[in-house]
Amino acid sequence: MENFTFYAPTYFAFGKETENETGKYVKRFGGTKALLHYGGGSVIRSGLLDRVKKSLDAEHIAYVELGGVKPNPRSGLVYEGIELCRKKGIDFILAVGGGSTIDSAKAIAAGTVYEGDFWDFYSGKIVEKALPVGTVLTISAAGSEGSPDSVITNENGMFKRGATGEALRPRFSILNPALTQTLSAYQTACGVTDIMAHLYERYLTNTKDVDVTDRMIEALLLAMIGAGPKAVADPDDYESRANIMWAGMMAHNNSCGVGRTQDWTSHDIEHELSALYDCAHGAGLAVTMPAVFTYNMKHDVMRFAQIAVRVWGCQMNFAHPEETAKAGIEALRNFLISIGMPKNFAELGAKEEDIEKMARSACYGNGGSGVIGGFTPLAQKDVENIYRLMV
Amino acid sequence: MENFTFYAPTYFAFGKETENETGKYVKRFGGTKALLHYGGGSVIRSGLLDRVKKSLDAEHIAYVELGGVKPNPRSGLVYEGIELCRKKGIDFILAVGGGSTIDSAKAIAAGTVYEGDFWDFYSGKIVEKALPVGTVLTISAAGSEGSPDSVITNENGMFKRGATGEALRPRFSILNPALTQTLSAYQTACGVTDIMAHLYERYLTNTKDVDVTDRMIEALLLAMIGAGPKAVADPDDYESRANIMWAGMMAHNNSCGVGRTQDWTSHDIEHELSALYDCAHGAGLAVTMPAVFTYNMKHDVMRFAQIAVRVWGCQMNFAHPEETAKAGIEALRNFLISIGMPKNFAELGAKEEDIEKMARSACYGNGGSGVIGGFTPLAQKDVENIYRLMV
Repeated sequence: MENFTFYAPTYFAFGKETENETGKYVKRFGGTKALLHYGGGSVIRSGLLDRVKKSLDAEHIAYVELGGVKPNPRSGLVYEGIELCRKKGIDFILAVGGGSTIDSAKAIAAGTVYEGDFWDFYSGKIVEKALPVGTVLTISAAGSEGSPDSVITNENGMFKRGATGEALRPRFSILNPALTQTLSAYQTACGVTDIMAHLYERYLTNTKDVDVTDRMIEALLLAMIGAGPKAVADPDDYESRANIMWAGMMAHNNSCGVGRTQDWTSHDIEHELSALYDCAHGAGLAVTMPAVFTYNMKHDVMRFAQIAVRVWGCQMNFAHPEETAKAGIEALRNFLISIGMPKNFAELGAKEEDIEKMARSACYGNGGSGVIGGFTPLAQKDVENIYRLMV
Repeated sequence: MENFTFYAPTYFAFGKETENETGKYVKRFGGTKALLHYGGGSVIRSGLLDRVKKSLDAEHIAYVELGGVKPNPRSGLVYEGIELCRKKGIDFILAVGGGSTIDSAKAIAAGTVYEGDFWDFYSGKIVEKALPVGTVLTISAAGSEGSPDSVITNENGMFKRGATGEALRPRFSILNPALTQTLSAYQTACGVTDIMAHLYERYLTNTKDVDVTDRMIEALLLAMIGAGPKAVADPDDYESRANIMWAGMMAHNNSCGVGRTQDWTSHDIEHELSALYDCAHGAGLAVTMPAVFTYNMKHDVMRFAQIAVRVWGCQMNFAHPEETAKAGIEALRNFLISIGMPKNFAELGAKEEDIEKMARSACYGNGGSGVIGGFTPLAQKDVENIYRLMV
């Protein structure tokens, strides 16, 4: 295991009706004037936004609203939010929504107290300082509610990049699984896929002797395989949604990724798809992951065989471990299809003729070195080959 | 899943030579004058205490020393520490040692800023305020490095009781697995047993639909079953000790115990043994757990069968699940014996004639209601029966 530091000081309030305590938590963590940041109509239609506002009023917390966050959140709204926060003297960013809203809130939080262009953080600069962020989560997927990460799409070229820094960890996150019951089966499945991707990205490591984190990742994958299809089949299944919600946070707060190299190839390759076609991140990952794993399998057959046996219940083929490894990738693919995810470019709305452009952007865009991948290094030609496996 | 809150804001610095940064972390978390709290000779002999002092000096942090913590830490030294901290104007408690030292440090931290008797916290009062605590861990076992808990033995009657409160979470914990390489095989095995007990206590729940935390507990148990015997066989196996150290923290920071009822019967019954005979807590648990589980098995046969299959690799007996449940308990017992743990009263140095006294103390001592157990309620007669299974 490699040396590491781990610091996850987010306060989680989990369970039914916890959103009614939002104001209390904003106050506890020092907020007096909040930016209330959200997306489209669903948080309004469901009455959630009103309940949150009522709880802010009850604690005499002033707030300014900024709605309009879209999936794959854009840099334009971040600039707008930063200007608004500075003008209004905002001291707390409250995100009500899913990963997109939270990531947009984090970008605003970092940008407001930074003299330069906030995009510097999405080009490699670590976030050292930010306004405090709190979240009321409505989608189990991105894990942003417990992570120090944020992903934003730059509208000047439509490419997605990530920022990180301990200052981006939310001060509190309110996790009420019932709030996710309004999601469609498709949105739920996209979230399940994203959570599983966060686990796979950490599983694919070159660090030896990391059994404790291997086991934790496997555990969370097993929980997703159990609860995911139930929540997709019955949107009102609170218990499955509760299991998914805690798994989604644990999958990405990095307690199961410490002390080991990680991959993130699937995310890098998928980001080009959702930036270009504006498809759901989870849907893009469903198509990307089996292709990436098939291409990378030979780098460490036994690691893929291990996850096949321990997570997917495949029989170990001791004479031909690569058969077991392949069976595990097939089991993942079939699982994702079974919960309604797309399986190829056509179902995703992606086009073969964009492959070279996307591979170039993934490898060289935004100052990239030409090589991606934490598990095995991949050049532009490799990435093109991976995209071709998705056609 | 039940509603819950989870807040674990401890900063972990994990890996080789991290103890040399102790001073830096004391400073980061606001300490200017520390109580340097430790146990006996091993931290001195190994040179660890000198390295820690050097790092404090480098950051110009003043300190006062208080050594002499014993396993099953005593109330007497806590009173002494509280007086010392008040007299010297201490603003940070730094524990260098294992769970006993950390628990003693937590008691001093809470007692120093409390007007009443610190034992109030060990009689049910929640700790709301305490001096900040930091730790340099030397034994993977108690999990106190990441928990809001502390256990102290009251010398006025020799009984052990626990205190809890978010204020007791360490501000930072330095986890260098190499520091545990000086432990004997026996001490290592006691630690492994304690960690496994923390997992079993959380596993034995009456809450339904908690697959995500079930899976996490199983994962950490599997990691212990893998790494435990290796560390016992080869004290210098850094990698196994690293896996155990992270598992030990995760087992008790409660991320795998949220939203569910927990048991803690084995701990309650063991505390009487280690208080009366001053045996190692882990050794006491090794004798206690199989007896408790055998006695409680009928309360939920399928839960014991589940852990038998998923963790111990037992074949499910679908016609007679209780046979599988029993096989799992036997597998645990045999595992503990294989790493050198005692299996009965005789090997532990406990006496049959004390059973009634211990059962009474467990149930009624320190204001107890007469019934213990979070999994199934146990009266004094039940506890006596459990102790008899250990003879």
